Amino acid sequence: MKTRTRSTLISLCAIAIALLVAGCACLSGKCCTRAKPTVQRYGMITGLKPEKADEYKDLHANPWPDVLKQIRECNIRNYSIYLIELEDEPYLFSYFEYVGEDFDADMARMAADPVTQQWWSRTDPCQIPLPDLEEGQIWKGMEEVFHCD
Amino acid sequence: MKTRTRSTLISLCAIAIALLVAGCACLSGKCCTRAKPTVQRYGMITGLKPEKADEYKDLHANPWPDVLKQIRECNIRNYSIYLIELEDEPYLFSYFEYVGEDFDADMARMAADPVTQQWWSRTDPCQIPLPDLEEGQIWKGMEEVFHCD
Repeated sequence: MKTRTRSTLISLCAIAIALLVAGCACLSGKCCTRAKPTVQRYGMITGLKPEKADEYKDLHANPWPDVLKQIRECNIRNYSIYLIELEDEPYLFSYFEYVGEDFDADMARMAADPVTQQWWSRTDPCQIPLPDLEEGQIWKGMEEVFHCD
Repeated sequence: MKTRTRSTLISLCAIAIALLVAGCACLSGKCCTRAKPTVQRYGMITGLKPEKADEYKDLHANPWPDVLKQIRECNIRNYSIYLIELEDEPYLFSYFEYVGEDFDADMARMAADPVTQQWWSRTDPCQIPLPDLEEGQIWKGMEEVFHCD
């Protein structure tokens, strides 16, 4: 066997060992450590007109695909809305996570989307914003007092 | 060079190629595809005594490490609590995700933990359970009407 062939094979062995080490690191999950996007959590609340509760629920049981697409494109994730009655008045509580870098800009982009505007023209009349909100606002932000991952 | 040595080196080369393929798959993220646990989302509500709001907030700004550990061991993740005033009455909303396989069993385990019991002996007197709850219950579950990932 020629010396060159032998040294080539030895080099390949070294590569094999290096890859074996890399493979072990991978299997142990170390290669899977990726930069996690910064998540901002939002908890919000609004009132719901009792006579519109069914309409609101029906709309949200079958949300328009383009509205969901817009939510995602505007960096909203893990978005849930809950309904609860407090002293016979229905309220909506929402929780979502924002993974973008400019919340106000993304929300402005969502507000400029024609399909989202159409959707809101159906949902806004169902809701009763809390009295201390500015004109045009529907959801009021709540104060986060606890979080654990 | 002996035939045995040569074939050993060739085998090692084959291992190197296999590991190279595995390494590429890993770098492309394919090895990171892990079974995602089933997640059950919970949105809950309770009242808060106005005169106890600061105490409740202080406790939750510095939660006891063993309480957090117990929460995690009982398969609760991504747990947030929000505070809001509705018609001058403070309420607490909580959102969390359950990743275990037996929620009732895990909650029973949490309730049996002495440190958690001590923690609850501080937090329960701050809260006003909704009137339609059973004796001993603090948080009332809300109805999820919408979710998108």
